[in-house]
This record gives sequence, structure tokens and C-alpha cells, in this order.
Amino acid sequence: MSSPTAVTADAWEAADAARPDVAAGVPRVLARCRDLVRPSLSAAIERLHPWPGEMAAFSLGWCEVGGAPADGSYEGKGLRQTLAVLCAEAVGAPGESAVPGAVAVELVHTFSLLHDDIMDGDGTRRQRETVWKAYGTGPAVLAGDALFALAVQTLAETPGPQGTAAVGRLSGTLSDLVRGQAEDLLFAGRPWTGPGAVRTDEYRSMAELKTGTLLGCSAALGGLLGGAPARTVAALDRAGRHLGVAFQAVDDLLGIWGDPAVTGKPVYSDLRQRKKTYPVLAALAGAGPRSGELAALLNSPLPLDEDGAVRAAALVEACGGRAATLEEARRHLDAARACLRSVPLVPRAAREIEALLGFLLHRRV
Amino acid sequence: MSSPTAVTADAWEAADAARPDVAAGVPRVLARCRDLVRPSLSAAIERLHPWPGEMAAFSLGWCEVGGAPADGSYEGKGLRQTLAVLCAEAVGAPGESAVPGAVAVELVHTFSLLHDDIMDGDGTRRQRETVWKAYGTGPAVLAGDALFALAVQTLAETPGPQGTAAVGRLSGTLSDLVRGQAEDLLFAGRPWTGPGAVRTDEYRSMAELKTGTLLGCSAALGGLLGGAPARTVAALDRAGRHLGVAFQAVDDLLGIWGDPAVTGKPVYSDLRQRKKTYPVLAALAGAGPRSGELAALLNSPLPLDEDGAVRAAALVEACGGRAATLEEARRHLDAARACLRSVPLVPRAAREIEALLGFLLHRRV
Repeated sequence: MSSPTAVTADAWEAADAARPDVAAGVPRVLARCRDLVRPSLSAAIERLHPWPGEMAAFSLGWCEVGGAPADGSYEGKGLRQTLAVLCAEAVGAPGESAVPGAVAVELVHTFSLLHDDIMDGDGTRRQRETVWKAYGTGPAVLAGDALFALAVQTLAETPGPQGTAAVGRLSGTLSDLVRGQAEDLLFAGRPWTGPGAVRTDEYRSMAELKTGTLLGCSAALGGLLGGAPARTVAALDRAGRHLGVAFQAVDDLLGIWGDPAVTGKPVYSDLRQRKKTYPVLAALAGAGPRSGELAALLNSPLPLDEDGAVRAAALVEACGGRAATLEEARRHLDAARACLRSVPLVPRAAREIEALLGFLLHRRV
Repeated sequence: MSSPTAVTADAWEAADAARPDVAAGVPRVLARCRDLVRPSLSAAIERLHPWPGEMAAFSLGWCEVGGAPADGSYEGKGLRQTLAVLCAEAVGAPGESAVPGAVAVELVHTFSLLHDDIMDGDGTRRQRETVWKAYGTGPAVLAGDALFALAVQTLAETPGPQGTAAVGRLSGTLSDLVRGQAEDLLFAGRPWTGPGAVRTDEYRSMAELKTGTLLGCSAALGGLLGGAPARTVAALDRAGRHLGVAFQAVDDLLGIWGDPAVTGKPVYSDLRQRKKTYPVLAALAGAGPRSGELAALLNSPLPLDEDGAVRAAALVEACGGRAATLEEARRHLDAARACLRSVPLVPRAAREIEALLGFLLHRRV
């Protein structure tokens, strides 16, 4: 039996030669945007009733259960706020103009994690308990609702026609998010093979709704609040959507081959949970004997033990599922870059956005 | 032991002599407004993903589990849509102008029932299973989220400055709703007596947030979309808020003394569940020996059996809790009427709104 193989730096580097100069600046950019948005995000959370407010702060990684401050190690990357700020700068506005949008998308992202963890029954996230596990299901539903309402309120209070357009965009995004989550939940009940099987194009549509629309909204709100013309806003939106599909593909790779020490999940986690992710669906789409063996493993009523998971991962790779997923990620990242290059943007900010895209393709967690 | 006494027509009539002429026209008004709003509400629900869409239709009483049409007996009164339509008419606009607002408030109401039933663990509503009981908790969370997003989207798509103002109003209402639900959930963990006990004024604040803001929003959106000046919109909002407090008081009376054959709940339902409602809190606020006996009954770790519930209900009544709640309902209904009379309204529509208020005080369910 081969030992679990984590995705190595070499494998990533083979996939995209741009990595070395990408890694350098991005953490600094993420930190700068986080520092810019934090006071307003924090002030928004302060407006909540203290109980959902604590759950929201816990979910954001700012505090422990009970409210004691956390050390910062549970915070997310803040990708959505960063995208909003950089896109405002890319259209020639100060990053500050994007802040209400950045706050709104971070609130929506936190809401969706909170409710999705309930629906998916996930008990851990970022190496600690999820909100429903720590506070109970009912309170977690409440906290998600509070964040949802606060996100809409944040943009509804932004004055002028840009505020109105921003609310419109956010509300469409919220509907798409829910639609994507519905599709994702329904995938679980569908067969691995045969006419009812989930096709990779259906998976891509789901990923665009569930992950792409909010990233597209983040980018578009940055442009919109920065005063960009409609054509530029639309291009930023499309770039964000492609980024979302690429982001999900990388997530799926990490869900199988990610390093448990970094992701905080068991090796082959998604395979053990029999999640219908892109690599597996792409592998099963081939008709060879090895995809038949993979289907038989996945269809077995027994839980997948260590050996079974190793074998399934090897079969997914042998059937081309891993290569197809890397290709999917790269293709959508290229499409995102093409969208960005189709409109005039401030070069420095555009470079930072492109660096961010590369960083996300190469992330380990 | 006395037998359970349902609230009789006599008791209500003693409380408000206006009842006879009220009862006549209101069901017709409710039906007219329902017919006006239904096509748009139905079209909105059609926009949902089919799965949350079915749960939403089930929750609205339009279908059974699986999607087969229901016979209409599970539908709510449609109070919020009616209030929106009548308030548009009261400011001289056609009822049609209120329809986007009416749709939004019915969607928000349905969302809140769906999620509140999860948080409260309530397994039945309108004499059948609640959504989480019938479809599962995760799917019910999803369906609520879908309705929430759709409500915001419905108003965000309403053009012009009135649409913008409407979204702003709805988003504040959503935040207040969540705040009220948080307070209500926290009341359950507080003591019946002593310094930490829930005071009737705290209960009223909770009722205003949880029930009043959405009724206020319904009325205000009707006025706003009907083109009324800010002063009139504010008066309609205040009227709706007072109506909400009165509505909750009547709900609390029905939760103890309502006729099980009509409400679909067991006799003394709220007492058996030891809900902290206005009649009980008002009864306990007195310091006499009977309120001490009531507190002892409620503090007992044993479940309240038939005899215990009958005794508790009698004590609540003897301590003045029932009379205080009727008085609370009447006072806030009077305040609602005063708000309505403080601004110029079209007489016919204003009469229909006043009839609706009276009808709600005298409802059996």
C-alpha cells in the first residue's frame, strides 16, 4: 500500500510557473485589506444582539466560546474583502470606497459557512468546532440569520444610486448562493454512475452559484462602489465567478490530496465522506475498467477504510480526475485573467489581483 | 376541579363592543387582498429552486409534502399582505402599488415561521407538521434562507426611490426580527421570579421586535409604495407596531385559554410548555400569596399535568394576568387607532383597517 501523498510544492509548480513571485506579496496585500476593512466589520458585528454577535465573532475567528478574544489563528484569509478593496483600487478609487461592500460580502460568507455547516452536518472548521456544534443548532440558525440581515442592512444604508445598485447585486447573489447550496445537497442523493449521475458541467454550475457568485459579487461591488462604468463592473463580476470555479476545484484537490497537517482534515477526507467532487466525477466520466472499479468502491455500502481511501484516490488519479481538476482550475483562472485584461484597470492593483489569483491556485488550505 | 374554559365569544364581546359589525366584512377584505397579491407571490415562489420552492409552498399551506396541491385549509390569514394593500389604498393609491411590499412581507413572515419553528423545536403548526419536521432541519434552514433572499430581491427589483426606501425599511425589519427572536429564546433560560425575572416591559419590547416590526413594515411599505409622505408612512409604521404588540397579547391569551378545537394546540398549551408569556409574567409581577403558589408550580421540576395546568391557569387569572393581557391588547389597539387617525387617510380604506384591528383582537386562532 502506498502512503498518503499530499499535494507537494513541486506538483503545484509544475502546474503554474508563476508561483514564486506570487507567494511574496499576497499575504501583505491580504493583511492590508483586512486592516482597512476590520474597523467597519467590527462595528457592524457590534450592532448585533450580543448573543448572535458572540456567535458571529466566534465564527469569524475573533473570539472563543464565551467571548474571550482568540489569538487570530482561526481567522479566514479574507479573500472576499480583499477582492472588493483591490477592485475599487483597480478602477482608480481609494480602497476605502469599497469598505461597505467588503463588510457585506464577509458577512454573507460567514452566514453561509454557518448555515452550510448545519446542513452538511460538519462539526469542525478551521481546526475547531463549528458554531452549531459549539452553541447548538437553533442558536446557529439565529446567528446566520442575523449576519444575513446585517449584510443587507450594511449596503441598504450606503447612500446614493451606487448603494441601491449594490443592494440589488447582493440580493441576487444571496438567491444564487442558496440555489447552489440546494444543488450541492441534492448531489449527495444522486447515483455515482448511470443516467442520473452528476455530470461535471452540473458540478461546475453548482460551484459557480455556490462559490463563484459571491466572489463575483465581491469584485463587482468593489468596482461599483469605486464608481466604475457598467462594462467594467460586469467584467470584474465575470472574473470573480471564474475565480470561484477555480477556487472550488482547488478545494476539491485539497479535499483529497491536501496535507492533513495544513488543512486540519483527515487524509482523503472527501473520499471517506463520499463527497461528489470534481476529481471523482471527472474520473467516473471515463468508461474504462478502472473507473468501474472506482464506482464499485464508492457504491459499496461499507465505510471506506484507510486502504479503501488510498485505493480510491489512486483510481481517481489513474482515471485522470486529478489532472482534469487541475486543468479545470487553470482554465478558469485563465478566464478570470482574460476578463480582467478586457477592461482598463490601474496597473498596480491589477497586478495585485493577478497575484491573488495565483496565490489561490497554489494555496495549501 | 373546573373544566378547561376556552375564551368564549361573550368574554371577547365584553372586552370590545365593536365586534359584531367588525366580523362581517373582514374575511371578505382578507380574501380580496389575498387574490390581489397571490399571482405575484406565486410567481416569486416559482423563481425558487424547486426543492426550497416546495418547502416554501408547503409552509404557505399551498401544497402537501411531495408537492400535491393542498385544499387551502392550512393557509394563514395573510394579515401582513392585507395590511400592506389596505395602507396603499388608505393613502389614495391603487392596492396594486403595494403588491411588491405585500409579497416581501409574506415571504419574510414565512421565513421567520420556518426558522423559528426550528429554534423553538415546534413540531406542529396550523394542525400539521412544521417544515423541519416534515423535510428535516437542514433543508428547512435552506428553505428559510431562500425565502429571506427572495424577499430582499423582490424589493430590490422594485424601481425608483420608493424601491430603495422599501429595501432599507425591510433590511432594518429583518435585523429587528432576529433581535426579537434572540430575546425570546433567552427568556426561556431566565428565572420566573427575583431580580433576573423577565419584566412585562421587556416582554413588550421583545413582542414589538418580533411581531410589531414586521406588521409596522407591512403598513409602512403599503404607504411608501403608494407614494405617501414620510409623516404618513411613519404613522402607519407606528400603528403596525402597536398592532403587533396587541396581536402578541391575544396570541398569549389563546395560548392558555384558546379553544383547542380551533387553535389546534392542547389546552393550556403555553403553560404546559412553561412559556414566558405576558399573562404569566403579569400574574407573577404581583406579590400576593397566589402569585407565590403560581411561581412554585412553574418552578417545580415536574411536568405540568392536566390538574397542574388547570391550577396554573386559574392562578394566572386570579392574579390578574388574564385581565392585564386583555388590557395590554386593548391599549395597544387603541394606540394603533390613534396613530391611524393622526394622518389624513382615505375613509373607506381606513375603516377597513380599523375593522381588521378589531377582528384581530377577537380572533380565535
